[in-house]
This record gives sequence, C-alpha cells and structure tokens, in this order.
Amino acid sequence: MFCIFHVSDGTGITAETLGRALTSQYPGIEARRVTLPFVRDAATARATVARIQREAADSGCHPVILATLLDEDIRAVFREAGLPLLDFFEHFAGPARELFGEGAAAEVGRSHGVSDAASYDRRIRAVDYALGHDDGVSTQSYADADVILAGVSRAGKTPTSLYLALQHGLRAANYPFTDDDLESDRLPAVLWDNRDRVFGLTIEARRLAAIREERRPGSRYASVGQCRQEVRQVESLFRRERIPCVDVTPMSVEEIAASIRAHLQRG
Amino acid sequence: MFCIFHVSDGTGITAETLGRALTSQYPGIEARRVTLPFVRDAATARATVARIQREAADSGCHPVILATLLDEDIRAVFREAGLPLLDFFEHFAGPARELFGEGAAAEVGRSHGVSDAASYDRRIRAVDYALGHDDGVSTQSYADADVILAGVSRAGKTPTSLYLALQHGLRAANYPFTDDDLESDRLPAVLWDNRDRVFGLTIEARRLAAIREERRPGSRYASVGQCRQEVRQVESLFRRERIPCVDVTPMSVEEIAASIRAHLQRG
Repeated sequence: MFCIFHVSDGTGITAETLGRALTSQYPGIEARRVTLPFVRDAATARATVARIQREAADSGCHPVILATLLDEDIRAVFREAGLPLLDFFEHFAGPARELFGEGAAAEVGRSHGVSDAASYDRRIRAVDYALGHDDGVSTQSYADADVILAGVSRAGKTPTSLYLALQHGLRAANYPFTDDDLESDRLPAVLWDNRDRVFGLTIEARRLAAIREERRPGSRYASVGQCRQEVRQVESLFRRERIPCVDVTPMSVEEIAASIRAHLQRG
Repeated sequence: MFCIFHVSDGTGITAETLGRALTSQYPGIEARRVTLPFVRDAATARATVARIQREAADSGCHPVILATLLDEDIRAVFREAGLPLLDFFEHFAGPARELFGEGAAAEVGRSHGVSDAASYDRRIRAVDYALGHDDGVSTQSYADADVILAGVSRAGKTPTSLYLALQHGLRAANYPFTDDDLESDRLPAVLWDNRDRVFGLTIEARRLAAIREERRPGSRYASVGQCRQEVRQVESLFRRERIPCVDVTPMSVEEIAASIRAHLQRG
C-alpha cells in the first residue's frame, strides 16, 4: 500500500495530474492520495514532512512524494527527511531553459494563479455562458457560442459544456433533441442557423438506458427500446445534416472535450 | 515566438498542465499553444509531424513539443523529424518503476479515460448535485453535501462548486446570503443545521464591485458602498459563527478549490 502525497507550492494540480498519469500505468498498485498545496516556505515544508511521517506511520503505508516545488531549499527539506521524492520542476527546469532561454521568473504558484487575467475572466464568463445555455435554454444567443453540443437527453452534454468552459474558456451551449426534432429528421431552426458550430454527441443505447435508469427507474424514458430509437434517429440526423459527432460511450468528459477541441482547431 | 504543441496519446491534459507549469516560469515568452490529442500510432504521428512542420513554416514560429507519449516508437517519429521534444513519460517512467515496482501496463490513454468507473460516476453525479444546489436552491438536501460554499453574490461560489465537482467529485452546494441573512448576523437555519460543512468565501469590496458592475452596470447592487457593507457583514458573520473562510480576491478557481480541499482533509 502506497500513500502518495502531492506536494506543491501552488494548488497541487500539476503534481496531481503528473501523479495520476504516472500511476495510471500501475493499475495493480493500491494507493491513497493526499494533496498538500501552498507549501511556500521552509517552516510549512517541515510541518508537512512531520505530517507525512505521522500519516505513514499511522497507516503503515509506504509514502511517496510527487511534487512541484520550485524552491530548491524547500525540496531539500523533504530530501533530508529521507522521503522518496519525484519533482517535476527539478527535472524539467533545465531542459526548459535550454528550449526557452534564460529569464525564468522562478516565482512560486504562478501556474494556476490568475497570472493571465484576460484568459481567466474568459473562463469565468464561459461558465456563466454554459450555465445560461444549458439544456436548450436561451437559444437566441447561440451566435455567441464557440460550440453547441447537440444530442439526446443524458448523453453527456452538460458536464462536457461545463468542462470546456472551466478548463478551456470555451462558450459551450448545449441542446437536447426533443421527440419532435428527432422525428422531423431535420435540424431544428436554432441549430440550422448556427450549424457551423454544432457538434453532436451520440451514445450506445444500452449505456444510455443504464444512465437514464438511475434518474427515472422503470420509466419509458429509460427503456432500451426508447433509447435505441432516439439514438438511431439522432445518428441519422447527424449523417443527413453532416454534423460532426463522436460516440461518447467509452469516453470520459476529458476525452469528449479533447475530441471537440481537436475538431474546432482543425475547422 | 514559440509554437508549443502539446502532443499526447491521450487527451493532452497532462501535457498541457505540465506545459503550462513549465512556461509559467517564462512570463516574457510569447507562445501559441496547440493541443494534438490521441496520437496513438505511427501513421498519426507522421501526419502530426507534417502538420507541425507546416504550421511552424507558415507562422515562422519556433516549434516545441511538450508531450506525453508512452510508446517509444511514436516518440521516435518526432525525434527523427528533428523536432525539439520534452516528454514527461520518457523521464519519469524509470523513476516511477523504481518507486512502484515492475508491472507497468504501458497502455496508452489511461490517465484521463474512464479507467476507474466508480470515481468517474461520482464526478458526473457531483456535477448534477452542484447544478441542482447552485445559488441556494434545494437547500433541503444539504445533508448530502461534502461542502456548502457560502458568500455574497458574485464571490465565486458557482464556478468553484462546479470545479470541485468536475475535477474532484465533491458534492458542493452553494448558498448566497440575502440581505436578511446578513442583517440578522446569524447563520440561516439551513446552514446552521449543516455548519460542519459550511465554508465561507469573502472578497475585497472594490473587486466585488467591479465584478458586479459587469453584470448590472450602474446599479446599487454593484456600488462600492453596497459591496463594502455586504462584505463587512459577511465577514462578521463568519467570525462570530467560526465558519472557516478564505479571501478569494487574488485567487483563481483552482486556488480556491485547493484551499477548500486542504481544509476538508484537515477536518
């Protein structure tokens, strides 16, 4: 049993991302994860070492530190305590300097702070936009959308819209097809008017039924028959109208978002 | 001018996160970023190399590849093309094997896929929860919350709730204080009943006024006087009721979320 401590002078997001990418290659290992952010001075570092040693002793697990610490003195505190440490900055600072030249600011906590106010504001506004254009509401301002996700109910449109907004500052609206939309086999007018930005999500009928079953157990809405019919109709609509689409069945929100961004960049 | 290509066999999130962390140390450099996900075979890698070379030639920028590619053959395609490449997996695979032992699956695209279905479902449910408990609605199921964010209007509660849900699977409700709440100088009953999970956000009055001004220009709601009074009342309430809180004025959503998670872990 491992106990992985993501230690950072910032939020710990980079350390967590790094740690998850690394350990996803070891599906067999059992690991508990703890994120310890904002370790910005030697006193905090020493308190953090004490905490890690205490937790490791209490739980009998093997501590591993996956860190992003810019300051060599802070890293040294962990190393002197004999704790196993992989640090992203330690390794990549040198190669990065070779690529980007001198002039590193070496300022802690930059990477998930509000260092770029314009792009940060864009993300927060994009969240407002996604919330205001969730589930087919306010279709009149679709002209402002970077992308409009279309699909049947519970195909993953809402979390994907929010992720695109929060993570990438993209204004993503989402539109759930109604029975009428599906039967007409035509794009609804609001989508037609903005069709260059419509992106379709489709999903395997059995998976859709399972997701809907959780929300409304035993309903017609959640039946495999109903799901199969809706999926067939929506796929036929996407084909006929040449709407780009992905099958989200095996995909996480991150993977759906990555596919959409790759499509937008190509477009 | 640099053109940074985040190349990945998965979503590119890890490559982007690491790339941003690295380049945030070089605030002076100008860089355009392109994420190229799902590079999973040699043919795609060759097409990607061609695209990078074309874009670099067209824009006259200096291409740099920040990658997460598990497969050595795919990495080799980029290296043979003479493109500068920093690869996270290449460096950390060895040290990780030393820490975690043999048995790496070396399976591409694991790190942001749905490899852990239970925790993925938890995140999607948490998003539903955050949306259903945004802005003080459905206070009756606060008992299910992992955390309840409380603060004045436009203090950052909604994006933080969504971030905690999407990124960490935490069910975060949020409660905006009304004028009545603030004047009574008592926690509203719904918060009192769940006070072990209430976390306060506060913000500097001038910053709050600027944010509100965008939403309702020239309103009393957006005036510095009104903002100053609300902030004073909410801070007095937090102190009196011993509600943990952070001043979000200089913080990004990621930093607010990291503070809250650190608090929850200590609790």
